[in-house]
Amino acid sequence: MRQAGRYLPEYRAIREGRTLLDLCRTPELACEVAMQPLRRFDLDAAILFSDLLVPVSALGIDFDIVEKRGPVLARPLRRKEDVTALPSPDLGAVSYVFDAVKALLAALAAERRAVPVLGFAGAPFTMASYLIEGEPSRHFQRTKLLMHAEPEIWALLLDKLSDLVVGYVREQVAAGAQAVQIFDSWAGCLTPADYRRHVLAPTRKIFTAIARLNVPSIHFASSGESLLPAMAEAGGDVLSVDWRIPLSRVRERFPERAVQGNLDPSALMAPAPVLERLAAEVLDEAGGRPGHIFNLGHGIQPEASIDNVARLVETVHARTRRG
Amino acid sequence: MRQAGRYLPEYRAIREGRTLLDLCRTPELACEVAMQPLRRFDLDAAILFSDLLVPVSALGIDFDIVEKRGPVLARPLRRKEDVTALPSPDLGAVSYVFDAVKALLAALAAERRAVPVLGFAGAPFTMASYLIEGEPSRHFQRTKLLMHAEPEIWALLLDKLSDLVVGYVREQVAAGAQAVQIFDSWAGCLTPADYRRHVLAPTRKIFTAIARLNVPSIHFASSGESLLPAMAEAGGDVLSVDWRIPLSRVRERFPERAVQGNLDPSALMAPAPVLERLAAEVLDEAGGRPGHIFNLGHGIQPEASIDNVARLVETVHARTRRG
Repeated sequence: MRQAGRYLPEYRAIREGRTLLDLCRTPELACEVAMQPLRRFDLDAAILFSDLLVPVSALGIDFDIVEKRGPVLARPLRRKEDVTALPSPDLGAVSYVFDAVKALLAALAAERRAVPVLGFAGAPFTMASYLIEGEPSRHFQRTKLLMHAEPEIWALLLDKLSDLVVGYVREQVAAGAQAVQIFDSWAGCLTPADYRRHVLAPTRKIFTAIARLNVPSIHFASSGESLLPAMAEAGGDVLSVDWRIPLSRVRERFPERAVQGNLDPSALMAPAPVLERLAAEVLDEAGGRPGHIFNLGHGIQPEASIDNVARLVETVHARTRRG
Repeated sequence: MRQAGRYLPEYRAIREGRTLLDLCRTPELACEVAMQPLRRFDLDAAILFSDLLVPVSALGIDFDIVEKRGPVLARPLRRKEDVTALPSPDLGAVSYVFDAVKALLAALAAERRAVPVLGFAGAPFTMASYLIEGEPSRHFQRTKLLMHAEPEIWALLLDKLSDLVVGYVREQVAAGAQAVQIFDSWAGCLTPADYRRHVLAPTRKIFTAIARLNVPSIHFASSGESLLPAMAEAGGDVLSVDWRIPLSRVRERFPERAVQGNLDPSALMAPAPVLERLAAEVLDEAGGRPGHIFNLGHGIQPEASIDNVARLVETVHARTRRG
């Protein structure tokens, strides 16, 4: 999960007068905000600062990220021609992302922080839903309409997005990213049957490509337990789930995978003893075995208490390092 | 699920110049819009037309339902005093609901439709989240903050809401409702541990009370599979789930319960053959055994095609009645 954010005053300072995309598109700024949480907390990884929609610039798609709303497209993809007209990806158009990865590696070396850099990208369903809806959506009606009514156009779009993501993460790894997270933030709106029919294959394509790059992959599934088997089938060395699925269930059903997660981000607004209890429950659920990356179950919220973040990092390290 | 709605022109006509609450608070209008879908489709039940927030008027809480936004409170409940100051429920303040049930029974008799009337209410968590947030919420931060930081105030609030709901459904049954649905639309934002700690007991209180009324209860859980065991423990003769949990999983895990659901409402915008396939999948998942109430997995959307609704009712009846 993104570690940078509005809960940090130094992040708010750097955002002053700048948009989120300004940060994403300026490697020094993206690097700086990625470093900020590492200077405050004893975190075990650095996360590329970017946005899921950023790579669509490589397809010539214009978008904006509107404050408190999310990504908005001037011309959402809705018709067959919108999809067939998409050009081959020009990754040079988003080279600032790969430069941000390099800058982050350099900054970590300069500040003597020996932690890996995690790159990331959106999974095809989540990317497609943004492109089709054109704005944040609750019901993903247009997305599902295209999927149901025009399955061939749908398949073509997801295939193009897979190819984009494969190239995009390959460049992140070439720039030095040591692991890659693939976020399928919205696939949870699908039935398992629809996921298998319309989403699994193009998603698997990405994980197969990442495996060839010899870096670990993390598959973030913001979905219920029922969809998890299909998502796991698509790939991911690590299954990352939100707080609504106990990690013990993931361990039980996928004993061969590592797990990531899954503290409810609201815990960071709770009184300290409650936070500690909730964090302990996550660790207990993971069973105290290796192969657990402790994380929030979703992005950190602007209202998170900095003291609580510090306390959480300490609590987790105290428990996991003492063995 | 509510059968009335904006997908019907006759509903839009009656809403012209009236608010949703106008309909809820005028028994003849609530009855009329509840009857509308029954006149078009061969439905097997009539659903009371109301809103989850309606009963809080019995606690003297003022709210509005804002178009395209949802329930909004002038004075959300946030402090201890807000909760302790809540009066005992005055169900006379919402007698229009019970009158709407009676009117609906009379209209069904007059139009010779021998179908049961289903009443409903919100579960304590969902009601509390509306009252605390004061507006529709994505993350339920304030709700979880009160739950974590002030567990005693939280418990008091949920207990008061349980008592309200118990009285409210008792009056619906006294007015003639033949089954009661309890909607926990938002409990899915909780971890199973938090649900058990903070929500299960007050929710169970309601199902225990309904059992004493000798009418069947339906527990709607808009949650992932992981939370379902705890919600089932709270009660419900019928477990109603959304489309993200295959009914076969509910059958498998709770063989003694009936199930309700769970077609993705987006299917009603799909081409007819896709709709028919998706409906068949739901029936297949339910295993062709008794104890399945076919339903949408969530509320019907304004964009639903009327032809598709008719086709769906026919498809389901053709399959389930032929045996």
